[in-house]
Amino acid sequence: MGKGGMSHGGAGEGKDGEEEENMAAWLLGINSLKIQPFKLPPLGPHDVRVRMKAVGICGSDVHYLKTMRCADFIVKEPMVIGHECAGIIEEVGSEVKSLVPGDRVALEPGISCWRCNLCKEGRYNLCPEMKFFATPPVHGSLADQVVHPADLCFKLPDNVSLEEGAMCEPLSVGVHACRRANIGPETNVLVMGAGPIGLVTMLAARAFGAPRIVIVDVDDHRLSVAKDLGANDTVKVSTNVQDVAEEVVQIHEVMGAEVDVTFDCAGFNKTMSTALSATRPGGKVCLVGMGHSEMTVPLTPAAAREVDVIGIFRYKNTWPLCLEFLRSGKIDVNPLITHRFGFSQREVEEAFETSARGGTAIKVMFNL
Amino acid sequence: MGKGGMSHGGAGEGKDGEEEENMAAWLLGINSLKIQPFKLPPLGPHDVRVRMKAVGICGSDVHYLKTMRCADFIVKEPMVIGHECAGIIEEVGSEVKSLVPGDRVALEPGISCWRCNLCKEGRYNLCPEMKFFATPPVHGSLADQVVHPADLCFKLPDNVSLEEGAMCEPLSVGVHACRRANIGPETNVLVMGAGPIGLVTMLAARAFGAPRIVIVDVDDHRLSVAKDLGANDTVKVSTNVQDVAEEVVQIHEVMGAEVDVTFDCAGFNKTMSTALSATRPGGKVCLVGMGHSEMTVPLTPAAAREVDVIGIFRYKNTWPLCLEFLRSGKIDVNPLITHRFGFSQREVEEAFETSARGGTAIKVMFNL
Amino acid sequence: MGKGGMSHGGAGEGKDGEEEENMAAWLLGINSLKIQPFKLPPLGPHDVRVRMKAVGICGSDVHYLKTMRCADFIVKEPMVIGHECAGIIEEVGSEVKSLVPGDRVALEPGISCWRCNLCKEGRYNLCPEMKFFATPPVHGSLADQVVHPADLCFKLPDNVSLEEGAMCEPLSVGVHACRRANIGPETNVLVMGAGPIGLVTMLAARAFGAPRIVIVDVDDHRLSVAKDLGANDTVKVSTNVQDVAEEVVQIHEVMGAEVDVTFDCAGFNKTMSTALSATRPGGKVCLVGMGHSEMTVPLTPAAAREVDVIGIFRYKNTWPLCLEFLRSGKIDVNPLITHRFGFSQREVEEAFETSARGGTAIKVMFNL
Amino acid sequence: MGKGGMSHGGAGEGKDGEEEENMAAWLLGINSLKIQPFKLPPLGPHDVRVRMKAVGICGSDVHYLKTMRCADFIVKEPMVIGHECAGIIEEVGSEVKSLVPGDRVALEPGISCWRCNLCKEGRYNLCPEMKFFATPPVHGSLADQVVHPADLCFKLPDNVSLEEGAMCEPLSVGVHACRRANIGPETNVLVMGAGPIGLVTMLAARAFGAPRIVIVDVDDHRLSVAKDLGANDTVKVSTNVQDVAEEVVQIHEVMGAEVDVTFDCAGFNKTMSTALSATRPGGKVCLVGMGHSEMTVPLTPAAAREVDVIGIFRYKNTWPLCLEFLRSGKIDVNPLITHRFGFSQREVEEAFETSARGGTAIKVMFNL
Repeated sequence: MGKGGMSHGGAGEGKDGEEEENMAAWLLGINSLKIQPFKLPPLGPHDVRVRMKAVGICGSDVHYLKTMRCADFIVKEPMVIGHECAGIIEEVGSEVKSLVPGDRVALEPGISCWRCNLCKEGRYNLCPEMKFFATPPVHGSLADQVVHPADLCFKLPDNVSLEEGAMCEPLSVGVHACRRANIGPETNVLVMGAGPIGLVTMLAARAFGAPRIVIVDVDDHRLSVAKDLGANDTVKVSTNVQDVAEEVVQIHEVMGAEVDVTFDCAGFNKTMSTALSATRPGGKVCLVGMGHSEMTVPLTPAAAREVDVIGIFRYKNTWPLCLEFLRSGKIDVNPLITHRFGFSQREVEEAFETSARGGTAIKVMFNL
Repeated sequence: MGKGGMSHGGAGEGKDGEEEENMAAWLLGINSLKIQPFKLPPLGPHDVRVRMKAVGICGSDVHYLKTMRCADFIVKEPMVIGHECAGIIEEVGSEVKSLVPGDRVALEPGISCWRCNLCKEGRYNLCPEMKFFATPPVHGSLADQVVHPADLCFKLPDNVSLEEGAMCEPLSVGVHACRRANIGPETNVLVMGAGPIGLVTMLAARAFGAPRIVIVDVDDHRLSVAKDLGANDTVKVSTNVQDVAEEVVQIHEVMGAEVDVTFDCAGFNKTMSTALSATRPGGKVCLVGMGHSEMTVPLTPAAAREVDVIGIFRYKNTWPLCLEFLRSGKIDVNPLITHRFGFSQREVEEAFETSARGGTAIKVMFNL
Repeated sequence: MGKGGMSHGGAGEGKDGEEEENMAAWLLGINSLKIQPFKLPPLGPHDVRVRMKAVGICGSDVHYLKTMRCADFIVKEPMVIGHECAGIIEEVGSEVKSLVPGDRVALEPGISCWRCNLCKEGRYNLCPEMKFFATPPVHGSLADQVVHPADLCFKLPDNVSLEEGAMCEPLSVGVHACRRANIGPETNVLVMGAGPIGLVTMLAARAFGAPRIVIVDVDDHRLSVAKDLGANDTVKVSTNVQDVAEEVVQIHEVMGAEVDVTFDCAGFNKTMSTALSATRPGGKVCLVGMGHSEMTVPLTPAAAREVDVIGIFRYKNTWPLCLEFLRSGKIDVNPLITHRFGFSQREVEEAFETSARGGTAIKVMFNL
Repeated sequence: MGKGGMSHGGAGEGKDGEEEENMAAWLLGINSLKIQPFKLPPLGPHDVRVRMKAVGICGSDVHYLKTMRCADFIVKEPMVIGHECAGIIEEVGSEVKSLVPGDRVALEPGISCWRCNLCKEGRYNLCPEMKFFATPPVHGSLADQVVHPADLCFKLPDNVSLEEGAMCEPLSVGVHACRRANIGPETNVLVMGAGPIGLVTMLAARAFGAPRIVIVDVDDHRLSVAKDLGANDTVKVSTNVQDVAEEVVQIHEVMGAEVDVTFDCAGFNKTMSTALSATRPGGKVCLVGMGHSEMTVPLTPAAAREVDVIGIFRYKNTWPLCLEFLRSGKIDVNPLITHRFGFSQREVEEAFETSARGGTAIKVMFNL
């Protein structure tokens, strides 16, 4: 896989496909991932061609690999995987003025239609026509190169690395959740679950100014990581739904204040029950995790205290803010990157296995 | 029960307690309601004394009578019942400038503390120190006279009757729900449940300008009443939770447009499942009814479409708007008043039985 | 000017340019407007070709004719004029699914970029790359046919005429102002100025549920028209800025309630001074008219009562709501259409003169 | 003026009025301020008696001393001055549960009615019945002791000094402005004026997470203070209104990004013109300063870019957040306290002269 072509691209000479075949990681079936050629679409006037440099593995990628599906999406045709990514501009379309070859960029993975009501209202993340990296049937970005709209490629500040750029994608989930829940310097925050989503939500809440953040999990190691990353305090809980009432008491003691907003980053009956019970009257519960689909929870007593339940789907317009958080140092995502792999057939398989195993792995990153 | 004292009061002469004993309907135990003397508290400088003229029976009143409790509130001492009321000012406190004896007023039943954060933020309905008519241990207003803060007594426009004034209380639930769900001329509304709360919510949504309102129930008669009161269309459903998917299809057909906001005015697993499934991405479900406490519902898929669940507790600041709706004719509550009773021991018992039986009874009203 | 081509188009046969030359009204210089051929751009996959049937004249059209400029926009090249329009679909692009030839549509005149931050945030009306009918150097729509994006062409309900469809454009200004000022059933509204913009704002405020609307002007006839169109009351004022204080007293008397929101649809020192002074603490003044650019007004005392000043630029996402208001009869724009003309050289000149003279003319409409 | 009584009070012994006469600084006429006895009102059940320990001088205090008026308020009777204050609880009313003698507290100076619409809506700062320290005819708090409602006395965290507690009052102006303008980690902020109000607004904007703050003034020293306190950059400007256009260019260069929100903390024609011109389309200008009452500014072009003008009156519900900012170190107000005085006749006079002279004085503080 020659990268020498980059100097061509850097000079803006355009297609170098003859010298170099574009390779990508194709999901072919359950547990079957192969590096194979991936033909790029033509470069439109508002598009750029990007050489991928850093691609992270998301839980949904693993889910597709293990089951060929995720939520309602089913992989029916071979599909390039991957959507957390950053790279370097190789070529820009005729109308692109914001970027030049050589620019380092983070990629927002979803292309919305801009013709539907939701797009026009500014909620483009809910666009029913969304084309999103590695959401079938759309190909992903674990590839040498991809073509993408220029307005979804965000130039990295000098002090932000390509790996950090790729981390904008998971971080965006936390940022979007914090925006929807209106987190600020007056919001005491409870986070249910110290997995990758819980951690980015916690980091985002801190960057939005939350004065006090308590994080809850069943696992000591995860809680200790969360504490190191900046949680003010942690509470270890059981998986037994009978324990909700007493755990809420404990959470309130540890918080030492009312819980204004709870992010349920696990999404199980128990975590959501705790979230609904622990949040103050007039507060909000933001459901980010998706453990259970149908939920059995005390929704009515929460509603009767005007605790609203806020839903989250991906994100919108978050890259500029993520990059500002990374630039200013308000957020450091590097401790989340626990494992790194190159882009060979063997390493791709190993990387996905590492991510699937969980354990100490938080974010598994490819360096291409 | 002499009402002759009113002429005194009308003349502003003040306490007429010697001539007339103030009587009230006391809840003494399960199914035990007795008209007995009720000593009024002293009139503070910002208070008024009101002669009650119209008092409606609420579902919670019936619940207290049948079980001595409602939600978390338990009646431990004999308590005067009733909280939907209107009357005529008999006497005003020394600092009251907004009212004079003879004024016809509707009473907002809750007195909040104005010292806690929730009061100061304008969410006084969530005040933990709230003193609310007929929520134990606070006495209610089914009485000849009550003493109440002047700022919670709202003068009736000339063309609004005392009965309509009493209806401001149930109507306020619908108005508060519409405000929280931000109903306006761009909001297509689905209402689950055509009971009294569903009906006032429907009336309020119409008055807030909702262009299209579809109401759902299991009962043909209730649906026919809802249609007569102004629902654009109705859908009859089963109580079988297996039917949700196909009923959602049917609801969408009848609506002929996306459902922007659903009010669940029943609050059962099935109604809430339908509400969550029928509402469009980015829409809202407002949980008003309280059928089930713990709920088993597809919360996660709804959250993943950013359908938010909005809770409701009573209301705040709704009387002026209710009175404007009644004055202007945007809402007519008279068709909801199906039964009327006087204030004698026999009639009080009969009235509560009528309300408890349901059937064709929507609102049972006392004329004192 | 042959319209026979329409039957072709209705059958979806596509380009009939050989049989029929497309004519448009070109602004060539000050007071010089000529009907000349106008070559249509190619039809893109998401575009439609529309045969214009109704085009209204806007104050800005007249301003361009008289001065070749409007605000900061200057006409440097010959430009087709007109932007308030409705017509019938002749041909649809290959990807268009929402429309078919023969559909009657109202056209939203501005095409935004959907790549800038303002577009992505849902404030596309502020897009710096906006291409807007008859805002130089973009051609307008006073033409036999135009090509336009399908998503900006809104199908008319059966009971809405093409003229009413063209009125969606001016009405949208009022609707956008009401949305930004959050008008609803609790908002008492004052409108300064009973010209075309004042009238559509008044109509929109009424449709948003404003319980009481008082309109102010210097002209008796305009006030009488406003009253006929649904203003609750009117106040005649002078042009003398010395009279503000006493006129505010008079306005408050006529309103009989606090002024929650004032729309200044004139935009002069005097009207804005009255607006700022008459609005209640915590209310809003929405500046819609643009009489004066630099303004001398008591801004500080208004700010010290937290009266916010809300600005307006065109509109966004308003056509569906306008059409719903027209469909339901909540708004009737027909009385605003005072003059009608055909699309000949003589009539075009006469129509613009009629609009420029003002007098009893509110909206001058071409029927093509 | 004996302070020995404090040990009594600290021990919770209650009324020590016989041993110690309560002294206060009375404003008697223009430039006439005298320390004289001040009889305390009786302690109500929800009140506390506070021994003042730190009282700052506000610009409005100086204004009253020099002119016996401020805005529309006129001092007609001798009035105790001062309203920025903190002290120690001496005695608590019978119903007070949140505080005990010995507690160190900061005082919010305004008592609102909680009966009007504005209070009930949560905008109590606009209450027309507000009783506010040293706003005639209400007495202020530059006194040995005052009686005040307990819910307006906020306990200081251990690491917050009494002087810092007194600084909550001016800081609250900045906090309220930031809340109304919705400042957060995505808001680039421009501050016009580096006087005391400009500085507290800048400190508050930083604490709300503003990524970039540029401050503008005519004075080098003030700008240097602002830079030291945390402004990212400064721009020195003239007082000549002709220079607005070029200064806006300079401000944009220094900001290096769009200006999302501008706080005009001076309130002159020139500062407001710059504010309106420099702020991006869709941004906000928050008018905090009150230099000119009638203003001549380019309001219409700003409105046509949907730049909204947000007004500010005092603050509401800000003490808890100010104390959190001080506790956490997000804000350090100590550098603002440039001069300190004791509470003797000579020192009071000298302190007010120091504050009136301006120069290097930012905040002049009494230690009682």
